[in-house]
Amino acid sequence: MSPTTLTDAPFSLVVDEQGVLKPATSTVERRLSQMKGMYHDAAAEDQLLAGDDPLVYEVFQYDMPEHVGELVVCTTLLYPGRVGDEFFMTKGHYHEQRDRAEVYYGLSGEGQLVVAYEGQHHTVAMGPKTVAYVPPHWAHRTVNTGDEPFVFLAVYHGDAGHDYGSIETEGFPQRVLDRDGSVAIVPQGEL
Amino acid sequence: MSPTTLTDAPFSLVVDEQGVLKPATSTVERRLSQMKGMYHDAAAEDQLLAGDDPLVYEVFQYDMPEHVGELVVCTTLLYPGRVGDEFFMTKGHYHEQRDRAEVYYGLSGEGQLVVAYEGQHHTVAMGPKTVAYVPPHWAHRTVNTGDEPFVFLAVYHGDAGHDYGSIETEGFPQRVLDRDGSVAIVPQGEL
Repeated sequence: MSPTTLTDAPFSLVVDEQGVLKPATSTVERRLSQMKGMYHDAAAEDQLLAGDDPLVYEVFQYDMPEHVGELVVCTTLLYPGRVGDEFFMTKGHYHEQRDRAEVYYGLSGEGQLVVAYEGQHHTVAMGPKTVAYVPPHWAHRTVNTGDEPFVFLAVYHGDAGHDYGSIETEGFPQRVLDRDGSVAIVPQGEL
Repeated sequence: MSPTTLTDAPFSLVVDEQGVLKPATSTVERRLSQMKGMYHDAAAEDQLLAGDDPLVYEVFQYDMPEHVGELVVCTTLLYPGRVGDEFFMTKGHYHEQRDRAEVYYGLSGEGQLVVAYEGQHHTVAMGPKTVAYVPPHWAHRTVNTGDEPFVFLAVYHGDAGHDYGSIETEGFPQRVLDRDGSVAIVPQGEL
């Protein structure tokens, strides 16, 4: 549960060496089994699920009042790995309050921000010290294209909310694949 | 001039080794002469102004549409120095849209976030990897308490705006001073 009255004192948090936000008041631990059907290679997915059900990413968030004037901070640790030729990625979501943007700041590792809106799509490369901007209205997902954890800080509006369902149904129009050791952005229709 | 339509594509910026946000679309270069009367030791201020009018801080910002759903990113390089026993600081401001918060993320150096609201005040120590939160409604200023540049990233709402005048008149109730090499937070009334 998020608090409901406006924050009335400043506070500080710290990002540790691994990228964990401390203290966090809510966390997500996303394993492959919780992303069923999101990767394009179902056979590769089944094979991994028959094994150790890998941890794909973790989110460490400090919850805030759900008011437009507040800002939520979280860090994401997106682990290196692939399902077949597709790099580990987050589920991705729209903001429930659609016109809310989001700012990412790269802390370590390498990745891509993938955004989609009404059939349009873009990708933005991210690394340490990159600021990446998710414009209002766009669904967004991140992908780890490197071989170490891709870690970034995110800031978004207190009232943004998350809508995972819509983009889960629509799917992102682009996939980020490992093609012979290179990062390839491939339209869904060309798989 | 800020753009007036909502951002419709993602983009990336980078923070360079010194902490400069690139590209920046607006910058502030604040010299001591532009902060006249803000430090408590007028004689020390005059002495510095008779010299080289030191550069106190610089801000590198990427301007955004002035819409609540957008987020503005900037970096601040607050240089080390003192006016008498008072550490170099930013002017400080309220947000014009008062209920807009702000998030700081420490990149290098050491400092204090000082906030004030209706006679109340708080300070929060900041260093690299510190997330510091400016709650909605509070005037905020930062102070460099170290001997290297204090550099931090800031994120705030597109429609927040800046009100420098009110806090310039009121003054912050606390000052951050160098007392024999230690950082002292001293109420204005005890100077």
